[in-house]
Amino acid sequence: MEKITVLGAGSWGTALAMVLAENGHDTLLWSHREDQATEIAQGHTNERYLPNLTLPTTLRATANLQNATAHADIFIVAVPTKAIREVCQQLNDYLTKPALFVPVSKGIEPHTHKRVSEMILESVLPQYVDDVVALSGPSHAEEVVKHHPTTITAACVNLSAAEKVQDLFMNQYFRVYTNEDIIGVEIGGALKNVIALAAGITDGLGYGDNAKAALITRGLAEITRLGVKMGGNPFTFSGLTGMGDLIVTCTSVHSRNWRAGNLLGQGHKQQEVLAQMGMVVEGVRTTQAAYQLAHKYEVVMPITNALYAVLFEDEEPKVEVDKLMMRMKKREIDEMMQE
Amino acid sequence: MEKITVLGAGSWGTALAMVLAENGHDTLLWSHREDQATEIAQGHTNERYLPNLTLPTTLRATANLQNATAHADIFIVAVPTKAIREVCQQLNDYLTKPALFVPVSKGIEPHTHKRVSEMILESVLPQYVDDVVALSGPSHAEEVVKHHPTTITAACVNLSAAEKVQDLFMNQYFRVYTNEDIIGVEIGGALKNVIALAAGITDGLGYGDNAKAALITRGLAEITRLGVKMGGNPFTFSGLTGMGDLIVTCTSVHSRNWRAGNLLGQGHKQQEVLAQMGMVVEGVRTTQAAYQLAHKYEVVMPITNALYAVLFEDEEPKVEVDKLMMRMKKREIDEMMQE
Repeated sequence: MEKITVLGAGSWGTALAMVLAENGHDTLLWSHREDQATEIAQGHTNERYLPNLTLPTTLRATANLQNATAHADIFIVAVPTKAIREVCQQLNDYLTKPALFVPVSKGIEPHTHKRVSEMILESVLPQYVDDVVALSGPSHAEEVVKHHPTTITAACVNLSAAEKVQDLFMNQYFRVYTNEDIIGVEIGGALKNVIALAAGITDGLGYGDNAKAALITRGLAEITRLGVKMGGNPFTFSGLTGMGDLIVTCTSVHSRNWRAGNLLGQGHKQQEVLAQMGMVVEGVRTTQAAYQLAHKYEVVMPITNALYAVLFEDEEPKVEVDKLMMRMKKREIDEMMQE
Repeated sequence: MEKITVLGAGSWGTALAMVLAENGHDTLLWSHREDQATEIAQGHTNERYLPNLTLPTTLRATANLQNATAHADIFIVAVPTKAIREVCQQLNDYLTKPALFVPVSKGIEPHTHKRVSEMILESVLPQYVDDVVALSGPSHAEEVVKHHPTTITAACVNLSAAEKVQDLFMNQYFRVYTNEDIIGVEIGGALKNVIALAAGITDGLGYGDNAKAALITRGLAEITRLGVKMGGNPFTFSGLTGMGDLIVTCTSVHSRNWRAGNLLGQGHKQQEVLAQMGMVVEGVRTTQAAYQLAHKYEVVMPITNALYAVLFEDEEPKVEVDKLMMRMKKREIDEMMQE
């Protein structure tokens, strides 16, 4: 039994805290909102993010970051990527010894182009970081809390740290693999949200499953092209954190990014969509980062470029998707390898 | 404008005949059933396979194989794989010069392990075969006839033959790529039906999107392992005819194989499911072939084996799926490469 703090009580943080509590770990869930912490600690629910769920009574919660930090030397970092630097910098005031950090949010920071694990390493003082292990894979929180079978990957260049995280989470319904390629795992997890937004747009336009399958396939090809240039292992992109996560995010109604894209495809504007969603849509920020990375690494990323034009240059979704579909190349394999 | 005969008036043969007729080709659709040929020729409908669709009046139909053969020197072969040898052998009586054959059915023959193009080459006399070009990709007939954007691959070792097929079909909503790797294209197209059956089973068991995404990901890995051993190009399996077709078949309600799996997952027996479907479920025969190929090429194919046990050894779907989910390997990339 380990003492673990989960930072962030959105749907994914809460679901993972539930898994850890069910596995018998002494788990504390930190929320930045007092009322939410009270709801979880006393009512054992988190209605806003996971309606109709009763959480284990052994799962405790707090809105006090000092107490949350003092509780553990393992931190599951489940706050939105936008808030990661701020929350992690605050931890420095309370940490007293090296800890294991497990980022579970997916994104790449615009302008700096940092992956989530890099943002943590830049925010927490070096003497307080033992290892950083990214946990990523095809895993909707809504299904995990129902104990539906789920597989996921723990990634770290230090394999023994990844194996430690594997042991924390592993149970009958939650299967954890390890992978030493944290670069590939984090890039695949982040960029799949870009493709999910685009897939939502094609669905919003009423274009059907044939078009969406083509988009997902070409999407994985462009993610892989970029990810390999950034140092990822090509096999990682064909695995659970690449292809697997991409499929679940593009084809499931649970996906926030898909839903945001779907609204865009139906003609709503970006600001309106974000207001309507009321939750974080990581893919919007990541699209900006991916667009910049495509230029930096000189990788052709037509889907990313099309989505950037829709989100940041006010282009019409239908015009951009039709342009994508009409891109004509004669030979499929040439295109996949050379673009 | 070319003279083209489409052999087989199921949903896919009819949809492709419609595309060709819309592209201005002199297209004749052959059905083995007189009443169906009459319905198409005179009523311009094919209610059993594509309800509520009006076919182009320029699309003609016949149940006379001699007339169908005399009409053209390009044959789109859209009969179920089970009937391909019989229909192609009959053509020899009527053919007078070399023709281009375009198989669009997907499957591998049990026991002989022949791909569809090989079955055609074995059935039609050599002096009557110019080239064989496989047409395959993520393409539900129901969406093609609505002019939803669709991408597909024409595959032949002889690239100029593939380009000829590309030119026949290409239009605004139907985009055709070429690929010289006909082995990879045919194996991917056939084996995806095995994984679609398995995906249907997990859905029938109520296991959710996380489990299905994992199954699809591991499914593509095992298809790729076998396909590469059989001579396919690994990139083909990551493309439209591999990953793309796998996704559309596993996630769309249009898929017959997925629907058959779904019924199996709900507890129906194989014979009952096939009777209830009333259409061809290619995946059942292909599972048998894939199971045999896995042994022949010494490739570990856990999903294929599980499905074979359900279909042919009367094992419980839940038991087999749970065994698959519980297979524990420590490192993801090792498993993908070495199994």
